[in-house]
Amino acid sequence: MRRDFDVLAGIGATVDGGVSRIALSAADLQARAWLADVIEQEGFTFCDDDAGNLSGVLPCAIPDAPTVLIGSHLDSVPNGGLFDGTIGIVAGLECLRIVRDAGLQLPAALELINFTDDEGAWKSLFGARALVGAVDTAELSDTEFVAALRQVGLDPRTVTHAKRDPRTLKAYLELHIEHGTRLERGDIAIGTVNGIVGRATYEITFYGQAGHSGTTDMYQRRDALRGASAFIVRAHEMIRERFGDGIFNCGDLVVKPGKFNIIPSEVRVTVEVRHVNHDLMAQMESRVFAIARECAASHNLQYHINKVTQMPSADMSEAIMQAIEQACADLTLTSLRMVSYAGHAAQFTSQIVPSGMIFVPSVGGYGHQPSEYTPWGDIVDGANVLLHTVLKVALHN
Amino acid sequence: MRRDFDVLAGIGATVDGGVSRIALSAADLQARAWLADVIEQEGFTFCDDDAGNLSGVLPCAIPDAPTVLIGSHLDSVPNGGLFDGTIGIVAGLECLRIVRDAGLQLPAALELINFTDDEGAWKSLFGARALVGAVDTAELSDTEFVAALRQVGLDPRTVTHAKRDPRTLKAYLELHIEHGTRLERGDIAIGTVNGIVGRATYEITFYGQAGHSGTTDMYQRRDALRGASAFIVRAHEMIRERFGDGIFNCGDLVVKPGKFNIIPSEVRVTVEVRHVNHDLMAQMESRVFAIARECAASHNLQYHINKVTQMPSADMSEAIMQAIEQACADLTLTSLRMVSYAGHAAQFTSQIVPSGMIFVPSVGGYGHQPSEYTPWGDIVDGANVLLHTVLKVALHN
Repeated sequence: MRRDFDVLAGIGATVDGGVSRIALSAADLQARAWLADVIEQEGFTFCDDDAGNLSGVLPCAIPDAPTVLIGSHLDSVPNGGLFDGTIGIVAGLECLRIVRDAGLQLPAALELINFTDDEGAWKSLFGARALVGAVDTAELSDTEFVAALRQVGLDPRTVTHAKRDPRTLKAYLELHIEHGTRLERGDIAIGTVNGIVGRATYEITFYGQAGHSGTTDMYQRRDALRGASAFIVRAHEMIRERFGDGIFNCGDLVVKPGKFNIIPSEVRVTVEVRHVNHDLMAQMESRVFAIARECAASHNLQYHINKVTQMPSADMSEAIMQAIEQACADLTLTSLRMVSYAGHAAQFTSQIVPSGMIFVPSVGGYGHQPSEYTPWGDIVDGANVLLHTVLKVALHN
Repeated sequence: MRRDFDVLAGIGATVDGGVSRIALSAADLQARAWLADVIEQEGFTFCDDDAGNLSGVLPCAIPDAPTVLIGSHLDSVPNGGLFDGTIGIVAGLECLRIVRDAGLQLPAALELINFTDDEGAWKSLFGARALVGAVDTAELSDTEFVAALRQVGLDPRTVTHAKRDPRTLKAYLELHIEHGTRLERGDIAIGTVNGIVGRATYEITFYGQAGHSGTTDMYQRRDALRGASAFIVRAHEMIRERFGDGIFNCGDLVVKPGKFNIIPSEVRVTVEVRHVNHDLMAQMESRVFAIARECAASHNLQYHINKVTQMPSADMSEAIMQAIEQACADLTLTSLRMVSYAGHAAQFTSQIVPSGMIFVPSVGGYGHQPSEYTPWGDIVDGANVLLHTVLKVALHN
């Protein structure tokens, strides 16, 4: 497992000590080719689907036995870390090797699956969504994305064929680093994910009136940046006051025309809202929109809200959570149930198959950056919990 | 004069009905070539200086007589209007023709001067500043600008030679459209400029900490956009409350890394401050900086202020203002003294020679856009006031 990890650390390596394996980039393709080679060398069954997801399968002797999926991703964010995604792949491979080498005859097939574009360089959680039939055909009209798919031999017209029949699946499991410091602060070995936050992203555009900054009456300006700034300040305050568990981020803001001496006529703010509770999520969104409306009105602006993505919140399987906790107890590892504030494939797999996630600590909570770090011993603990959970889930009726 | 105006309307004409004659662009060079031809055809003396300023001179018979400068500019902002700058050039040419054709022997030379890069495509008021010795050598280390200068045969090492001896100059006059609606609202024919606002531009950069938006504790974020937004909101409020005549604009804002799901780590805000009173201008700047400091501190950010430009405020000559007002009275035109909130060459010429500006109304106050419009009769009125003022100033001891 360590050899695999070290190989992947060298594919798309950056000068900062991280990796850039953006989905469908040369580095991602190199990592995928490496995975296909390993699967073949190990004698697992290699499969790929119409969304570019790559799998190595340890088949079951029983005909039509269901499959336990062990998922993760080889792709990374731009200039990301060595651990996000990678540890799930190498631990999954190791589970298959151990079960094979031990000669265990499980009543389920085991399938390690690498999802296409988990990080959303093109379309967030694309491979996982294809697996459950949650790809929107509108996404496949993005010509750049389609070109990238075709370059790796995928046909946008057949992506929907990647959808799996739920009756063929028994469980979905994933080992991942925690994005956050709850495990580290509590000195806890394993996080048992009980839910994944819902996430909605919007572009809110405020429209004012351009004008020469020196000569337009200060009291008659329709300054789109002033209105957008008031929105950002007020929305953050509202979320803090009313939604203790809610997440809010304005990650970008673009000004037109963007000149020193011209009053901003158009400002687009990118907005993200997350909550694990579906109803509170809806309340947060409607309050954010109300603030946008008020700030537009009080600054004499027009505004428009464009929804970019909507990822539903998801509950993990109670039976799988109990299996993870039992595995931790067997291995004398501490564990804690926790919400995932980041999106993961299990957000979608849970729509068609009982799903669970195992978190290991990330030092300092760093994620999506080269400084991401998890001690090797913690990864081994996580891989052992994954293996024990896989066995419990596979054996469970 | 109308023929000249119509020719210039066709040089760099845009589909929107305006012109784009960005300084040192092909269109600007075409307009300059046209002006040089006209100067030659009319029999005026053609001169150019080491900053690329072009002049047509009607010489004085008296040796060593001082010069009355009539200035303006052929360059425009990108996609600008037909009137800004242009009317000053065509009216200045017409003044020289009329004085010549009338056979007047004035005790001063008359010089129409076209300033290089008045609009600041490269360096604001470059030609006017070169004339008074206010070009900073650091500006001439901008390699793109130097390349543009060299392309028109200018040597950056000799730009400082464009500086004039104040003893050779008697006055500076310029006819320009008002950027604003004070003349239109008051139904007044002529604005007599009594001062030009000072202008300082800054880039204020706030530095926070990037992090995954879903997983970084909402209460431990160092969100540079949140701090920058608070700065924009508070600075605007402060200016309105404390500086009724002050001008403040945040014209652009750039976010890094600018992703939906990453907390902004760096935000650069472009800030502009204008005031006609030197002391109040300094107070405004220091209060704006104090708000930047407070917003950085309260959001746990670092910040840095970079001064981009500083244009001093300028007083126009009382004698010239009285000459303009007397010219208006002679022509039975109404006039009003007013501050110019836009920058003009006279801001710098006033440092070495008594200077004055004549404004004509601009319908709706539009400026720096194709919708700029001044009825031809108003331009003729302005040109007549310019001519009468030139004569008064030239004859004045």
